[in-house]
Amino acid sequence: MGSHMGSHPGSGRRRFLTSGGALAAFVMGAVRSLRGQTAAPPPYEPQGLLAYGQPSKFTGHILRRTTQRPTAITDTALMTPLHELDGIITPSGLHFLMDHTNGIPDIDPQKHRLMVHGMVDRPLIFTVEDIKRFPSVSRIHFLECNANSRPLRGPNRESVQLIHGRTSCSEWTWIIAEGGESNKYTMSIPLAKGLDDVIVAWAQNGEPIRPHQGFPLRLIVPGFEAIRAVKWLNRIHVVDKPYAAWHEAGNNADTAADGKGMWFRFELGPKAVITRPSGGQKLPGPGFYEITGLAWTGGGLVRRVDISTDGGKTYQEAQLQQPVLRYAHTRFRFPWRWKGEECVIQARCTDERGEVQPTIEEAAKIFNTTVDYFYQADHFNGIQPWRIARDGSVTNAIAGA
Amino acid sequence: MGSHMGSHPGSGRRRFLTSGGALAAFVMGAVRSLRGQTAAPPPYEPQGLLAYGQPSKFTGHILRRTTQRPTAITDTALMTPLHELDGIITPSGLHFLMDHTNGIPDIDPQKHRLMVHGMVDRPLIFTVEDIKRFPSVSRIHFLECNANSRPLRGPNRESVQLIHGRTSCSEWTWIIAEGGESNKYTMSIPLAKGLDDVIVAWAQNGEPIRPHQGFPLRLIVPGFEAIRAVKWLNRIHVVDKPYAAWHEAGNNADTAADGKGMWFRFELGPKAVITRPSGGQKLPGPGFYEITGLAWTGGGLVRRVDISTDGGKTYQEAQLQQPVLRYAHTRFRFPWRWKGEECVIQARCTDERGEVQPTIEEAAKIFNTTVDYFYQADHFNGIQPWRIARDGSVTNAIAGA
Repeated sequence: MGSHMGSHPGSGRRRFLTSGGALAAFVMGAVRSLRGQTAAPPPYEPQGLLAYGQPSKFTGHILRRTTQRPTAITDTALMTPLHELDGIITPSGLHFLMDHTNGIPDIDPQKHRLMVHGMVDRPLIFTVEDIKRFPSVSRIHFLECNANSRPLRGPNRESVQLIHGRTSCSEWTWIIAEGGESNKYTMSIPLAKGLDDVIVAWAQNGEPIRPHQGFPLRLIVPGFEAIRAVKWLNRIHVVDKPYAAWHEAGNNADTAADGKGMWFRFELGPKAVITRPSGGQKLPGPGFYEITGLAWTGGGLVRRVDISTDGGKTYQEAQLQQPVLRYAHTRFRFPWRWKGEECVIQARCTDERGEVQPTIEEAAKIFNTTVDYFYQADHFNGIQPWRIARDGSVTNAIAGA
Repeated sequence: MGSHMGSHPGSGRRRFLTSGGALAAFVMGAVRSLRGQTAAPPPYEPQGLLAYGQPSKFTGHILRRTTQRPTAITDTALMTPLHELDGIITPSGLHFLMDHTNGIPDIDPQKHRLMVHGMVDRPLIFTVEDIKRFPSVSRIHFLECNANSRPLRGPNRESVQLIHGRTSCSEWTWIIAEGGESNKYTMSIPLAKGLDDVIVAWAQNGEPIRPHQGFPLRLIVPGFEAIRAVKWLNRIHVVDKPYAAWHEAGNNADTAADGKGMWFRFELGPKAVITRPSGGQKLPGPGFYEITGLAWTGGGLVRRVDISTDGGKTYQEAQLQQPVLRYAHTRFRFPWRWKGEECVIQARCTDERGEVQPTIEEAAKIFNTTVDYFYQADHFNGIQPWRIARDGSVTNAIAGA
């Protein structure tokens, strides 16, 4: 990258935002859209599936699903069919979704505005096109709901979709505002500096974010629970303290059964989930199988995934799909020959912090609580084993389930 | 990865395929599907957009489009709207598509079979579920039609979609059959060894490949022209010579205007395309813009992209979006302040082979032909500049256009 724009070393945060006001005024004057202005439409245009393709009618069973027995907490969840998917990208149409019962707005992006206020001389108001003119970056990141992996008992415990399907992974595009890189742009894009601690995204898997995921603008906080990823973003309150501190404070309000604060709620813990074979599936007979699934961590990189096919007595390292990306789902694979015996398979994730995914019993011991606590706890990342019966059927084998 | 399966060092290709016959017979006996067998449907299921999401109605203009003036060659092309997209993943519904005029089959995967014959003791026949049971890998790769970037004159020359939209990039999942890795599986999956030179894919961007892209099985040849990526794959003829040799021979049939063979047709050359600002768009006024686009090469990795804003007199290096992936689209970005003058912007790709994308004049000189030759040539990878007028309008500025 050339340095022809120069840096602006003497400027503090407030000064950037002051400058930002002037730029914003200019940018807001840019009423004509850079995008969407192609040449006049061609004489004929493709229609329907030729214009925008859809899945085969033979894969119509691959859908987001709700819990089997709705509760106050979980009846608003639409979960990703992880057992039907490959690779690490979740198709946008199958991205998990919470809190849809009040309806999904389909906002006109021409009318949408983002207000930035708080620690600024005066509020800044941006159109979606203004936002899209700033330098940008695209990264593959997962989102995970704080309530994921919770229904380990009852009618929702039998499939990987219903237990673990509140996580998905997409390529997000957003305003660039990252450490050293932002210096290159400070002369011209002070907004990026002003938004140093938040990520304003407008594209998911290449195209504009879909309405269910927050069209036209969404906040993204890599590695943190998805409830922080505000959809249909229209207001940012800039405050004079680290965003992480606010986040941490909010989470520390949660306490364990013994009254202690749960430190592991600050970021999502390491988690590995076997998606195939998984609950509700049936192995057709003894022979070769690839055990595969997804691992992720709020700590950044997945370092390794180990597989046990004997209920946790012994583990062997699985292969991680390359490249392993920070705050992204990581696909793991493990070749396995099933001899037809009853057995329990499970996966265990270790992340770059050295944190090892615990069993549910280990988690209870570490946090001085009971196993029962985790059946309703947020951010549960305990190992969830699958039992394979002699007839090949697969069921949830977690302790006490 | 553990070595518990052992290797099979003494076995040759033919022996693997013989063993493969026995395995295939077993695998074919596995009539029950591992996938698609979730628990009984929950009491209620989401419908419509809640079950499978779609784009906003406000982005309905983001579609595949055909050429404005159809010809015998190009009237079957449905091109990707590169100027409307971000990141490197092309949404599956917008993946480019050729030769659709005979209709798109939506094949029942339960009835589909893949036959492998030729250098095998007897033909092997696999179901789609058989294929999916083999060890697999997912990678992000582009496809590009040999005819891409050709309509540099006439009514199709004015937008990046109509000129360059015959390329897209997806995460593909396929049978693993790669060099050293395959040894780990040779005891149990000789088919992979037998298919060492071809890639049989079944998933694209996480979900099953869509009908327009070859559901249920497609051949993928990373870095080679997309016409080799056979859709709805049902037959593989195993031959006793390198696949690349056959491919090369086929391409060497093409000759330049002076009768010489065109060596650069063996693999796709390095190419960078500015997608924004691009033809048909209009800059609303002087100020900051991010010049962005996509680069790729049949040679593997994009090493660098340089941007000129003065018609090629001087270049400065653009930033490459990380991670840069082999045989994948690579997003580049370059911050730029437009002062309102008329100017020509262009991008130039250099790949890991050291091959530098030529201007159209350089290409003509190198290959001892005329500039006119390239207006109908396959595999054209010359630099295609955009002219920005004082009113901000953007048009194709290629020589002689």
